[in-house]
Amino acid sequence: MQIAILGAGMVGRAMAIDLAAKYNVTSFDVSDHALHILTQKNNSIKTIKADLSNYSNYNSMLSSFDYVISAVPGFMGYKTLEAIINAKKNVVDISFFPENALELDALAKENDVTAVVDCGVAPGMSNLMLGYHNERMIITNFECMVGGLPKKRVYPFEYKAPFSPIDVLEEYTRPARYVENSCIVTKPALSDAELIDFEQVGTLESFNTDGLRSILFTMGHIPNMKEKTLRYPGHIALMQGLIKAGFLNTTPVHFKGQLISPMEFTSSLLFDQWKLGETEAEFTLMQINISDTEKTICYDLYDEYDTATQTSSMSRTTGYTCTAALNMLIENLFTEKGVFPPELIGKDETCFHFILNYLGERNIHYRKTEIN
Amino acid sequence: MQIAILGAGMVGRAMAIDLAAKYNVTSFDVSDHALHILTQKNNSIKTIKADLSNYSNYNSMLSSFDYVISAVPGFMGYKTLEAIINAKKNVVDISFFPENALELDALAKENDVTAVVDCGVAPGMSNLMLGYHNERMIITNFECMVGGLPKKRVYPFEYKAPFSPIDVLEEYTRPARYVENSCIVTKPALSDAELIDFEQVGTLESFNTDGLRSILFTMGHIPNMKEKTLRYPGHIALMQGLIKAGFLNTTPVHFKGQLISPMEFTSSLLFDQWKLGETEAEFTLMQINISDTEKTICYDLYDEYDTATQTSSMSRTTGYTCTAALNMLIENLFTEKGVFPPELIGKDETCFHFILNYLGERNIHYRKTEIN
Repeated sequence: MQIAILGAGMVGRAMAIDLAAKYNVTSFDVSDHALHILTQKNNSIKTIKADLSNYSNYNSMLSSFDYVISAVPGFMGYKTLEAIINAKKNVVDISFFPENALELDALAKENDVTAVVDCGVAPGMSNLMLGYHNERMIITNFECMVGGLPKKRVYPFEYKAPFSPIDVLEEYTRPARYVENSCIVTKPALSDAELIDFEQVGTLESFNTDGLRSILFTMGHIPNMKEKTLRYPGHIALMQGLIKAGFLNTTPVHFKGQLISPMEFTSSLLFDQWKLGETEAEFTLMQINISDTEKTICYDLYDEYDTATQTSSMSRTTGYTCTAALNMLIENLFTEKGVFPPELIGKDETCFHFILNYLGERNIHYRKTEIN
Repeated sequence: MQIAILGAGMVGRAMAIDLAAKYNVTSFDVSDHALHILTQKNNSIKTIKADLSNYSNYNSMLSSFDYVISAVPGFMGYKTLEAIINAKKNVVDISFFPENALELDALAKENDVTAVVDCGVAPGMSNLMLGYHNERMIITNFECMVGGLPKKRVYPFEYKAPFSPIDVLEEYTRPARYVENSCIVTKPALSDAELIDFEQVGTLESFNTDGLRSILFTMGHIPNMKEKTLRYPGHIALMQGLIKAGFLNTTPVHFKGQLISPMEFTSSLLFDQWKLGETEAEFTLMQINISDTEKTICYDLYDEYDTATQTSSMSRTTGYTCTAALNMLIENLFTEKGVFPPELIGKDETCFHFILNYLGERNIHYRKTEIN
């Protein structure tokens, strides 16, 4: 069984190592450095340096592979997925691109391809759980709160990201779409800040982000749905200050006879400060609440950096959900053709439990409770 | 009597109009716009467009004048004052340059010139009052709190300045020098933030700034002296965030193949946001506490934008202190030669009361109270 993994970043690397235990894995990346780190950690993984934005190559590049995982940066995710589908390869995608993946559904069906998209933690597991319970109760409320944070809190941001700050900064400025009383409402980014105490990490602050994505449409019958991001208290106040002061404006400003984008300048200034260290302790925290008129079903996730394998929690919770879905495809547990966000897979009892068990074997546990 | 005023900014303009009631005033500035506004407000004032950094011109430029006021930007203040002294003209200076004015004392004496420096509100009136009471009690503690703020509070900074943001930003990053138990101690900029309630404006936040200047040396025998700046609460927290995040670093950073100073970029981004409107309501608030072992003498100033004459409080409180001192020279109330910060003038009962009365006539009142 030959698996191609496009992208050897922090998460792509964790997935390659996970899958290499059972399959022949080849990782593609434009960065020698990324591929070198991967080989050092596991020399059974084949690495190929490639410009993955050269989409005309995909047919030949992928011809010898049975399955593909896409873990490329979001900005190139849509075109990458389209090229994989055109190459007629089944794929699981965690590039989290901004475009609507369902626009590739017809193409996937034409090409007899199964494409699972947004298959990480959130989006990902949150969609899966919503999809599962949507078949089993009349959901009136869905709420997802999620955050990945460093254990060491360094002023002023107390935040680290394994990806470019600009992706986070754009999330902070994009209006958030919600469903309230069966209507899609748009709220300002960072709105509805709320302090919440968590057993494992103390008080965090939740705020609106535009994270519902596909379920805005696939789960449009649910009257109330919202997604919020979690950060340490104070982060949002500082970000709002920066936004109001214009530091996140994308319209270039005149500075010493040049045009400079404040957003890009801010992103470059924060790049090193926000860079998650290779062996830096961090955690992923998620709380999902799914309610009908009688009860609320809650799923709680708390996962930490794995010191033994030096794998970040972000990579574990995102990457292993993706590799779980890939194994699900390999074992023919899900055989429909088209583009599927996880809520469409969660419907299926077997698929749902397969993915939860796969994560459980990797010590990622979603604690389920029910409040009546 | 011919008066030359170097600089026709907001404060320079107010001084020109004030002095034009009694004297022949000529204002110099490099900006046509600034000179045009001045002429519109009072066409009896002569205006001359001049590059005031062309110091070799000063002898001829100033030859026909009896007295000079320097209200140029701080960065060029020292060289300007030196040129005025070399031109043998008595001068009052409110350019608030960073260099030590007393280094020009010998030159002023040689040229038989009286130069009064730092003659605004703070530095200025705070020095004058300290100098006055220093002759009349054994001062153990001197404290000055001062701020100029807009009446309308606009998030996130809730601050406006009639001068370039970079001067304020540098004040926010320069360590603050204090006297504690007869030792000069240096504290980080923005340290010792403290919330204080004021009768006229509610709660403000005070914090350390490097504002003692000349009195660190002229009043070195006083065991405890400190100066703090006032802003609306929250301003400091945001500024500290910006500082910690590197937005006020003066070391250029690489951005798209260029070297850019974060401090300069931030200053240019804030320029319009911090610009005090020509007719924007603002106020000046100052509290001075001078103590010996028995009592504390307090001076309180609260002054507002003057709607009738459309003169900012900053211009009134700073500019009229300067014009008061100029009138004091003209009336030969102070005839010593050399460079004099106001604490050296305040010693003199007549000079002290002359300046307070001059300000009182312009409805600027320092309310004196005594606590035993």
